[in-house]
Amino acid sequence: MVSVDGFRALDEKSLVDYIKATPSLCSKLGNQFEELQVKEVGDGNLNFVYIVISPSGSLVIKQALPYIRCIGESWPMTKERAYFEALALKEHGRLCPDHVPEVYHFDRAMSLIAMRYLEPPHIILRKGLIAGVEYPLLAEHMSDFMAKTLFFTSLLYHSTAEHRKLVAEYCGNLELCRLTEQVVFSDPYKESQYNRWTSPYLDRDAEAVRQDNILKLEVAELKSMFCERAQALIHGDLHTGSIMVTQNSTQVIDPEFAVYGPMGYDIGAFLGNLILAFFAQDGHSSEGENRKTYKEWILRTIEDTWNLFQTKFTSLWNEHKDGPGEAYLSAIYKDSEILVLVQKKYVKNLFHDSLGFGAAKMIRRIVGVAHVEDFESIDDTSKRAYCERRALEFAKTLLKERRGFQTINEVVLAIRELTPNEVA
Amino acid sequence: MVSVDGFRALDEKSLVDYIKATPSLCSKLGNQFEELQVKEVGDGNLNFVYIVISPSGSLVIKQALPYIRCIGESWPMTKERAYFEALALKEHGRLCPDHVPEVYHFDRAMSLIAMRYLEPPHIILRKGLIAGVEYPLLAEHMSDFMAKTLFFTSLLYHSTAEHRKLVAEYCGNLELCRLTEQVVFSDPYKESQYNRWTSPYLDRDAEAVRQDNILKLEVAELKSMFCERAQALIHGDLHTGSIMVTQNSTQVIDPEFAVYGPMGYDIGAFLGNLILAFFAQDGHSSEGENRKTYKEWILRTIEDTWNLFQTKFTSLWNEHKDGPGEAYLSAIYKDSEILVLVQKKYVKNLFHDSLGFGAAKMIRRIVGVAHVEDFESIDDTSKRAYCERRALEFAKTLLKERRGFQTINEVVLAIRELTPNEVA
Repeated sequence: MVSVDGFRALDEKSLVDYIKATPSLCSKLGNQFEELQVKEVGDGNLNFVYIVISPSGSLVIKQALPYIRCIGESWPMTKERAYFEALALKEHGRLCPDHVPEVYHFDRAMSLIAMRYLEPPHIILRKGLIAGVEYPLLAEHMSDFMAKTLFFTSLLYHSTAEHRKLVAEYCGNLELCRLTEQVVFSDPYKESQYNRWTSPYLDRDAEAVRQDNILKLEVAELKSMFCERAQALIHGDLHTGSIMVTQNSTQVIDPEFAVYGPMGYDIGAFLGNLILAFFAQDGHSSEGENRKTYKEWILRTIEDTWNLFQTKFTSLWNEHKDGPGEAYLSAIYKDSEILVLVQKKYVKNLFHDSLGFGAAKMIRRIVGVAHVEDFESIDDTSKRAYCERRALEFAKTLLKERRGFQTINEVVLAIRELTPNEVA
Repeated sequence: MVSVDGFRALDEKSLVDYIKATPSLCSKLGNQFEELQVKEVGDGNLNFVYIVISPSGSLVIKQALPYIRCIGESWPMTKERAYFEALALKEHGRLCPDHVPEVYHFDRAMSLIAMRYLEPPHIILRKGLIAGVEYPLLAEHMSDFMAKTLFFTSLLYHSTAEHRKLVAEYCGNLELCRLTEQVVFSDPYKESQYNRWTSPYLDRDAEAVRQDNILKLEVAELKSMFCERAQALIHGDLHTGSIMVTQNSTQVIDPEFAVYGPMGYDIGAFLGNLILAFFAQDGHSSEGENRKTYKEWILRTIEDTWNLFQTKFTSLWNEHKDGPGEAYLSAIYKDSEILVLVQKKYVKNLFHDSLGFGAAKMIRRIVGVAHVEDFESIDDTSKRAYCERRALEFAKTLLKERRGFQTINEVVLAIRELTPNEVA
């Protein structure tokens, strides 16, 4: 059934007809439809995702439906999100082609994106972290992605006119922003029908979050920053479920929450989800495998990601200091002394923003609507609650005391202090 | 001559033909054209302004030309600014009708706004301040205008969806924003053909501004905030030349720089220009009139404006805490303890932003392109330079040390300390 706006939800059968009617997709499959394999694999919260493989090619088709998949039709959500996802995918791909899958085709009426199929052994990073797999290039790749996508879409590279045009465009993604505002910055701090937690173990912990005035004061500041501050084009949902990896490849997908917002929101999402992965490890360890070494690798990856990001971001700034960016005109910030001063201040503020947003993202995954598989896959609920409680306590401290941290090493030390007997 | 887009620059004669062809304007003049008086009075930097008076009515016509009037055709400037001016005038009028002139007619193709004529004895506030006239209701009225226009266009009253739509709309006013970014936040801190100052007296002072790394560090933060932070609909040029007054009336005009930006930019513009007026008084005093009492009135007005603003703004917040605003949901910030905490933090940050922007606006009026009549009208250049230097020194201190001030009274005390023998 086709709706008035030209939209119709596809299934595995109608999808093939759609592909056959779309020349650019036919050619990606080598025009071979006899042995076509189509598989629906959308395990995310929002969309339908089909892998399509022919003997001589492959692609992925992602279609947004006008509601949130994991909740159902009772929570409507604009399918226009596919437009912003395609826009951001293309922009990210232009800025960082090594770590973003190529977009082959976008159909706005159908809210449909066709893109590169990330072939096995690519898996969702979160699943790799649960399985205890090390990815030696992860920090290198993710720092690269974040430094490039954030730097080149900020006023460090944009003229203010270009920036305002792009800000205006992405303001249209307001429904997805509202979802973030609700589930990240509001619901966990009040009674909400969607909130859940490992009950009864965390009942008092969830209540404590709702009663913590200092925490609410801090999260209000972050919410306002998220809503008001158009610092750069952010992915908007950069957790470990939005990244596919192999030992050699890191690919960032699913930027449907893309908007001009605070850079720290992306950096925090990634670091915060690594910290969640860290605290979940004890739930995955067994007698034969205590995950001590793996936890060390996670902590090292957290440290490396920020430190590499900081270095790369500052390098891009130095490289383009005479470029089109208008926040710091080279005629004013020309000598190295003042340039170093402004860079240090900028990076320090970004660090604290990132810690704050990271902490908020951790909290919402423990007492809000959408949980993470890192914890959900721990079958022993008492063990799961133990892991979650430690993550929650750390996140609360991080949110409230983030300005006291000077380096990422201090953050990692604070994580270690919470687990003195396990990580030497 | 009519251009392809339907625009033609009017003069006193063609203006009358335009009015005659526009029914809504004819009726405002009682359809009487025999004894029509038309006078061009645009003394601002940008536009042409005509007062039109018939025996039975009056109006003002403002037309934007595609360049900056005070510079000439060599500095092009979109005439689309009239669109944003009309939009903001109507919005400000809706929110605060007592202090904004009514818009009768807007013609986008002609970049033309017809509005209420603010009849004598209305004069531009800046001229009243130069003449040493007290306006006992000024603080009351301006705090009212700022509290209402800023509160009701912020996330304290807007839903985030409404906010993003309006932010996107005003992003279109990017050329006027660029002008602000250049002349307020950049040019004074570098060599620029447009900069000027009272030379040779202030040559070293202007140079010192360009060499002051801490000042540049602070002004960079304000520039980024101006470009990135869509906190509320700001007037964007709220100096004492954008306000017309009598003893009983205060009317805010000329919001062509309107944009969603930081609230402190408006508050700072007004307070900063009052401080400039204060420092200019010694240039206007004579043996028979030392202006001591008048300077006291200015200082009191500065104090009253901020204190009244703070009270009114917080009252609006309390009144609408269960309203549509989404920054602080009442389900989270419900008890008075947490509400007082977030309000105090919000107002404190706003205070420091206002002081910072106020200081930046002062500095640019002394060493940038556009000066103020407060100083320009002091014929004795040595005396003028003396007044300007004290204002500049105070502004530099204010910009650098603004976070150290807890109350507006402390700011006023700091002004007094600079002038110990004159203001007891």
